[in-house]
This record gives sequence, structure tokens and C-alpha cells, in this order.
Amino acid sequence: MFFQILDILGTIAFAISGVLIALNKKMDPFGVLIIAFVTAVGGGSLRDVLIGIQPVSWMTNMTYVYVIFGATVFAVLFRNKLNYLRKSLFLFDTIGIGLYTVVGIEKGIVADLHPIICISLGTMTACFGGVIRDILCNEIPVIFRKEIYATACILGGLTYFLLREFMSDTNFVFVIAGIIVIVVRLLAVKFRISLPSLYKDKP
Amino acid sequence: MFFQILDILGTIAFAISGVLIALNKKMDPFGVLIIAFVTAVGGGSLRDVLIGIQPVSWMTNMTYVYVIFGATVFAVLFRNKLNYLRKSLFLFDTIGIGLYTVVGIEKGIVADLHPIICISLGTMTACFGGVIRDILCNEIPVIFRKEIYATACILGGLTYFLLREFMSDTNFVFVIAGIIVIVVRLLAVKFRISLPSLYKDKP
Amino acid sequence: MFFQILDILGTIAFAISGVLIALNKKMDPFGVLIIAFVTAVGGGSLRDVLIGIQPVSWMTNMTYVYVIFGATVFAVLFRNKLNYLRKSLFLFDTIGIGLYTVVGIEKGIVADLHPIICISLGTMTACFGGVIRDILCNEIPVIFRKEIYATACILGGLTYFLLREFMSDTNFVFVIAGIIVIVVRLLAVKFRISLPSLYKDKP
Repeated sequence: MFFQILDILGTIAFAISGVLIALNKKMDPFGVLIIAFVTAVGGGSLRDVLIGIQPVSWMTNMTYVYVIFGATVFAVLFRNKLNYLRKSLFLFDTIGIGLYTVVGIEKGIVADLHPIICISLGTMTACFGGVIRDILCNEIPVIFRKEIYATACILGGLTYFLLREFMSDTNFVFVIAGIIVIVVRLLAVKFRISLPSLYKDKP
Repeated sequence: MFFQILDILGTIAFAISGVLIALNKKMDPFGVLIIAFVTAVGGGSLRDVLIGIQPVSWMTNMTYVYVIFGATVFAVLFRNKLNYLRKSLFLFDTIGIGLYTVVGIEKGIVADLHPIICISLGTMTACFGGVIRDILCNEIPVIFRKEIYATACILGGLTYFLLREFMSDTNFVFVIAGIIVIVVRLLAVKFRISLPSLYKDKP
Repeated sequence: MFFQILDILGTIAFAISGVLIALNKKMDPFGVLIIAFVTAVGGGSLRDVLIGIQPVSWMTNMTYVYVIFGATVFAVLFRNKLNYLRKSLFLFDTIGIGLYTVVGIEKGIVADLHPIICISLGTMTACFGGVIRDILCNEIPVIFRKEIYATACILGGLTYFLLREFMSDTNFVFVIAGIIVIVVRLLAVKFRISLPSLYKDKP
């Protein structure tokens, strides 16, 4: 139940981030809704299709559909006021990537895949909704260019597989892994930490 | 038989719309052919993959392949004369989205999915070939920015599920739904109706 | 064994071509790794998903993952020296498309698909990693614009199905088809042959 609520909060945050970018591109109402959707479910859909879980998750669980639709309408109506929510949205989004990472890892484990593949699936679940959103908006995906984002997911995934060696309660290990993702991202943003640049000149 | 012919006319129209955009981007013959293909079969392929119908439809029905190939050669050869066909092409394209919408809804129903998901699948079938075409051509997808297009598909889908409550002949209901898509789009273009803008200034 | 080595050389070449383009776009280390990955496995993943081979190939064979990771680190560290390797890289890349084409055709045959579809799958395997790479980098895919590249794959595929009529040793026919792809591409680049332009003015 607790997880379900967090999952929904994450989905809301992802959908709203899609709405804000779509509005910025002056899309029409249909475009805004689609961008909200792909941001929220794109990463999970890609994961499901690559593993072979079909129909993909959001097609068999209407909760996502209603939540994303509601979040989109809310975000469009109150878009001028969303600035006041900036901090909450950032927090939701961060909770979202923590949860999505854990969900992705779990699906990989259920499909009996190698830990490295499972970590990739977790990262994909958390990050590729945003990648597809950016492609549909004709931008180079933001996560390829800056910010600790995917890296937090990867660290969370590594934590999961390390801890599992020592602990038998996998649910507890999942919680820890999700928290690692969230804490790494919060710290990285607070202290402006980013991946070391590959370029001598400032990008 | 009658439906088959309409389906082929729709496929031709989609393929030709791809050719025209690819020529505009100065693509080489291979690029033109690929863009024609993805415009015609991209939406259906995405639908099939998300549901889990594999190999995707066009791989097991060579008619599509031949029709798209023929339409591409035709469109390249007579591209300077296609202006004269502008009205016919628009009509084919509109028939195409009507049919593709109905086909998508039907596949969703066969897969036992929720009506909202079925309507999404119908809309995806009709619209996402164009979305993938625009992404490959490095454009923001046109359907996110203007025109009643997806909206017509959604209205057709809603009509289907409403009428099905009262009518037992689902084939007849499918025909009505397809006609609704076509009529809504024709009326929207004729009277320049578009979705209400979300922006105060003109986009 | 011999094929395995060629396959790995091809994968390395594809990964490195991804790294070079990602560095050019000033991506961060995570972005560079992802672009290397999609360039190397994107075409095969698309093929597997469209046919219905899931989990997709690279998820069940860790060799690819290690090779791509190693090639990425190597290419990032020695990126200033890769100019000296330009010819080797071009050769690896060409071997790569030859092999990827043959692998794609074979998967299509195993799935019992029409020869034209099999040739499409071979071409897709060889070319669509580069297409996805270019889309993620916000470019019109280079293979739609110039160079004999896909055409070499298609000619190799045609050769395969023609020769199979007369020869019973399909392995040998596969080798010939792969060599045709490689030779056509090498000759096309050496003699600057490209597809006939569809445009009167120079593109």
C-alpha cells in the first residue's frame, strides 16, 4: 500500500514533467497528453518489450492511465502556479526514479537475467521515459548531457546486488536500493555534483 | 473485399505522404523507401509490439510490402504531378486513419484490453506512423502541434464503445466508428476547426 | 569461432562509431556509453522485438555487454589517437554490417518469414543501430542521406536467396552473402559510388 502510493506519486511527477516540457514547445492538448504519457510509461514499456512482458504493464493496470490523465489536466490548469510546487515536484520525481529503478531490477530478476542486465533495466525504467519525451520534443535527451540521474540509478542497482549477498530479506534490500537512488540524486543536486567532464573546455 | 480495398488505399496514402516528406528532406532513394514504410506500418508495428502480436502484421502479409513499394516508386516518378492529386491523397489519408483506427481497436478487443486502452491502440495505429516519420526526419511530430487528427480517432473510438452497448452487430458498429473518424476529420479541415489553444498568444 | 571473432570486431567498430559521435555532441560519460550501446545493439534489438525473440539477444549473452563496455572505455581514453585507426575502424565497421546482415537474414529464416522480409531484417540489423544513434543525437539518420550502406546489405541479401536456389550448403551461402555486403561497400567507398540522386540540383 505504502509502495503503491509512492509509485503513484512518482508517476504523477513524471507526467507533470512531460506536461511542462510539452507546454514549452507550444503543443496542442493532444500532444501534451501524449508527452505526459510517454514520460510516465515510456521507460517501463521499453523494458517490458525488450524482456517480452506483453501487453506492457500500463495496458493491464488502468490506475496508471487515470493518474496520468488526472495529473495532465491538473498541470495544464495550474501551470502558472506550478512554480510554487517546484520543490515538491523535484522530490516526487526523485522518489519516482528510485521506485522505477527498483521495479525495473525486479522485473529483470523475475526474467532470470544477469545482474548487469537487471541494473540496466532498472536504469532504463527510470530514465528512458524522459529520453523518449526529449526525442518527441526534438531535443538531445537531457540525461545524456548533464546531471547525476542515471548514475544514481546505477549506484542503487549495484547496492541491491551487493547487499543481497549478505541479507536474505530481498524486500528490505529493495527498499535500501531505492533509498540509495533517492539520496544520491538529492545530494548530487544539492552539492552540484556531476559526472567528470570528458572535455577540457567547458561544455 | 471492400474493406481490403479501402485498407490498401489507406496504406498507399500513408506511404505517399512519407515519400513527399522524405523528398522534401533531400533523402536518397533508400531513405525515401524507409520513410514510406514507417509511415505506413509504424503505427501498427508499435501497437503489435506493445500488445505482443509478433511477428508484427506486415511481416506476415506481403500485400503491404508490395503496395508500399509500388506506391513509393509511383510517388517518386510522378512527384511533380502529385499536386494534381492533392485532394485524392487527402481523401485516401483520411480513409486510412478511419480504417487504421478501427483495426487498432479490434486488435485491442481481441487481446481483451480495457476500452480506453483499445481506443489508445486505435489512435496509435492511425497516428504513430506519422509520428515516427517526423522523428526520423528530425521534426517535432506534426500531430502534436495542430489539426484535428488524433482527436477524430478518439471520437471514433468512443463512438464504437458507446454504440456497442446498444447494438449487437459489431461489424456494423465498426463501420460507423470508421465513418465517424472520417467525417470528423473532413469537417474539421473544411471548417478549420482545431483543438482549443492552451496559449493566449497565437502559436 | 572465426565468426565469433568477426562478430566481436563488428560490435567493437559499431560501439566506437557511437562513442565518436557522442563525444562530438559533448555528451557526458553516461550518454557516451548509452550511444555506444544503442549503435551496437539497437538494430538487433529492433529486429528481435519485431519478430518476437525476447528477451532480446544482448540480454542473454553477456559477451556483447563486456565488449561494448571495453570498447567504449578504450575509445574515450584514446579518442585523440583514433584518427590513426580510421582505416581499421572503417574495415571493422564494414565487416560488422556484413555479419549483422547475415545474422538478421538467418533469424528471419528461422522465424519462417518471406525472403523479402528476411532481407529487410538483415538490413535493419546492420543499419538501424546507426539510425537510433542519430535520432538520439538529434540528427537526420546519415544512412537516409548518403552512401551505399543499406544498399550493400540489400544486395548481399538478394545474393543469399539467389544462391540458395543452386547450393545446398547454406553456411557457405551465408559466407558468400556476407562477403558481397563487404565488397560492395568497400568498392562503393573506394570509387565514390552512391545511389542515383533524385534531385536535379546537388544536395
